Amino acid sequence: MSRRVITLLTDFGLTDPFVGIVKGVILGINPEAECVDLTHEILPQDILAGALALEAAVPYFPPGTIHLAVVDPGVGGERRPLVVEVGGHAFVGPDNGLFTFLWRRPGVRAVACTNPTYHLPSVSRTFHARDLFAPVAAHLSLGVPLARLGPPVEDPVELPWPSPRDVGDAEEGEVLHVDRFGNLITNLTLPGSPEGRGVVLEIAGLRIEGLAPYYAATRAGEVGAIVGSTGRIEIFVNRGNARDRLGVGRGAPVRLTKSPKMSWGSSPQT
Amino acid sequence: MSRRVITLLTDFGLTDPFVGIVKGVILGINPEAECVDLTHEILPQDILAGALALEAAVPYFPPGTIHLAVVDPGVGGERRPLVVEVGGHAFVGPDNGLFTFLWRRPGVRAVACTNPTYHLPSVSRTFHARDLFAPVAAHLSLGVPLARLGPPVEDPVELPWPSPRDVGDAEEGEVLHVDRFGNLITNLTLPGSPEGRGVVLEIAGLRIEGLAPYYAATRAGEVGAIVGSTGRIEIFVNRGNARDRLGVGRGAPVRLTKSPKMSWGSSPQT
Amino acid sequence: MSRRVITLLTDFGLTDPFVGIVKGVILGINPEAECVDLTHEILPQDILAGALALEAAVPYFPPGTIHLAVVDPGVGGERRPLVVEVGGHAFVGPDNGLFTFLWRRPGVRAVACTNPTYHLPSVSRTFHARDLFAPVAAHLSLGVPLARLGPPVEDPVELPWPSPRDVGDAEEGEVLHVDRFGNLITNLTLPGSPEGRGVVLEIAGLRIEGLAPYYAATRAGEVGAIVGSTGRIEIFVNRGNARDRLGVGRGAPVRLTKSPKMSWGSSPQT
Repeated sequence: MSRRVITLLTDFGLTDPFVGIVKGVILGINPEAECVDLTHEILPQDILAGALALEAAVPYFPPGTIHLAVVDPGVGGERRPLVVEVGGHAFVGPDNGLFTFLWRRPGVRAVACTNPTYHLPSVSRTFHARDLFAPVAAHLSLGVPLARLGPPVEDPVELPWPSPRDVGDAEEGEVLHVDRFGNLITNLTLPGSPEGRGVVLEIAGLRIEGLAPYYAATRAGEVGAIVGSTGRIEIFVNRGNARDRLGVGRGAPVRLTKSPKMSWGSSPQT
Repeated sequence: MSRRVITLLTDFGLTDPFVGIVKGVILGINPEAECVDLTHEILPQDILAGALALEAAVPYFPPGTIHLAVVDPGVGGERRPLVVEVGGHAFVGPDNGLFTFLWRRPGVRAVACTNPTYHLPSVSRTFHARDLFAPVAAHLSLGVPLARLGPPVEDPVELPWPSPRDVGDAEEGEVLHVDRFGNLITNLTLPGSPEGRGVVLEIAGLRIEGLAPYYAATRAGEVGAIVGSTGRIEIFVNRGNARDRLGVGRGAPVRLTKSPKMSWGSSPQT
Repeated sequence: MSRRVITLLTDFGLTDPFVGIVKGVILGINPEAECVDLTHEILPQDILAGALALEAAVPYFPPGTIHLAVVDPGVGGERRPLVVEVGGHAFVGPDNGLFTFLWRRPGVRAVACTNPTYHLPSVSRTFHARDLFAPVAAHLSLGVPLARLGPPVEDPVELPWPSPRDVGDAEEGEVLHVDRFGNLITNLTLPGSPEGRGVVLEIAGLRIEGLAPYYAATRAGEVGAIVGSTGRIEIFVNRGNARDRLGVGRGAPVRLTKSPKMSWGSSPQT
């Protein structure tokens, strides 16, 4: 029971010993906790990027997982510390919008984990991941119930979420993230037609017709689009780097047109 | 039995949550698995670099270790997914040459792990590390036998391996890798004479006579050669950076001459 | 008992598989060991930076923790390998000053861990973290007593420690470290007055009056000073980067003046 997984997502980087210190605090409270790093390379104070990375990772962790997520420009000030429970997972971190993607989920509950019983004896004004969030996560992993951690929160902070806009017969979205491979991950999805027949994407003056079934189905060096591993449409260059090739990055507009009557990439008579 | 080590080697980097997600999948199947990162900073799609790093690491892991290695430009296409067993270790990853160094080992066996029973219920076309290789590795760690994972493979893909060439009384090799410290790791070895008497290395117009017994045996700033920790000859600068000093990197030619009658570095009369 | 935490701090980086290999050796000896990375991004051979990072992390680990710390330009030469025990923690690494901050602590004991029984069978001249320090740390985690590892050491190497100097009514210190966020961590502390009333810091031609209670208590983009998470005064820019703004880094002089009669930042009549 007490060997529960605690994931860690921060903007701390790996150059300083911050992340190791957080794990030391956790293991001091629950020696059986299993810490798993999601990423610590969120750009400093980039709350939205942290939220998007966390949203992508959560579905792949087992029930009972606790997610410690700290991108926290307001540390030490008025912002509340939160614990959220939903879908059998728990989330610990600052109330600054990092958990926006959870608020619409059925059965979501949140508390402000202000009960000092579950903090370190001395809480600094600059490192709550160590002094407050890590001990709370560790106590949660030992089975401390939500209600003991602090009072309920009904009005958590929400970030404006980068959703695509319907514009006539098109959708206008944007690049949310550039991954390690230079792939441009957009906020556009395509639930109805995974093959992408009749789909046209426009980005950076380029027009991409149809979706590739897999990266290597395009020629090396060719720009393509594909439904990526979290369901988002991404722009890639087979054996290349789409960010470098297209010269655009996060925030770049992308336009999606679906023309069900047309079927690019197949012969006219089909 | 089920607390087995699973190593992870990829070109995913640590900026995206990819590696954490892979661990989530593993721990969801075998909560007792012990994941150990080898490196995730293999340059994107650099299969040979991945193979060399894995080859260096394997001998230091206990019997029963499972190595999950994913450098996979062909993900989602025709390339087969592999599991290899040899010497008490198992290897899981794409059939693209990443495991070339295993094929000559006695008793090696391979299967194409195509049995969907041991994959995630839904397999994407872009992230087989998550959807296919991680679950296969986790099931292996629970004791699932090789034969259940899929049909035998007799013709795995082999990479051309960068072996040195004998040229008269010299060997011509190359720099395989530049490590963190700027050391130039070559494909040259020196099994017979670890002290390196009578050895001459030529690289980037420089001539290095004899091998150093340890880095600090040379003067600070001096270029030296040494038998490195995996038995390969490496070029180094004591308290400096050989790559920066010599201005060469991976692929740079290195020439090794052994003159058993001479003994550079000692006085003429000895 | 044998599930003990072993922390790892090195200058190995994460691009090569060095750190993973060290963990493989540890887990081969003690499969129950729990490895926690502190950092592997200490600049190559920067012993003082390693010592400072280790000093910051140690207090947050539970009793019984073993700290494996390897920043080791002298590897393979005359420098002794050390094990230090103090305050219920053990430390394993080279005798080159990395453990300087431990020597004044009550009850400190050190041995040179030269007993080959607790090394790998073959010890290279370039990678003692793998061949010597990792196996020693793993055997320690299994309960091997200090005295078996080698002879006592009474004269460990000490680094000159960067302490501030009293100069009249001021203290002159320096920037020890620039963290991930661009904060300038100094060697100045302020035990008596955490609020920092009457404190003036001078750095890079700037004059900072008073200390901030938390980062976000200053305006975005404003330069401030604060008592950081390890008690050291640090210079920061709220939602910005102090290193970039001030154009100074490690080693930059900082001057601290305390004027108990004055109270900057409050109105004259209080």
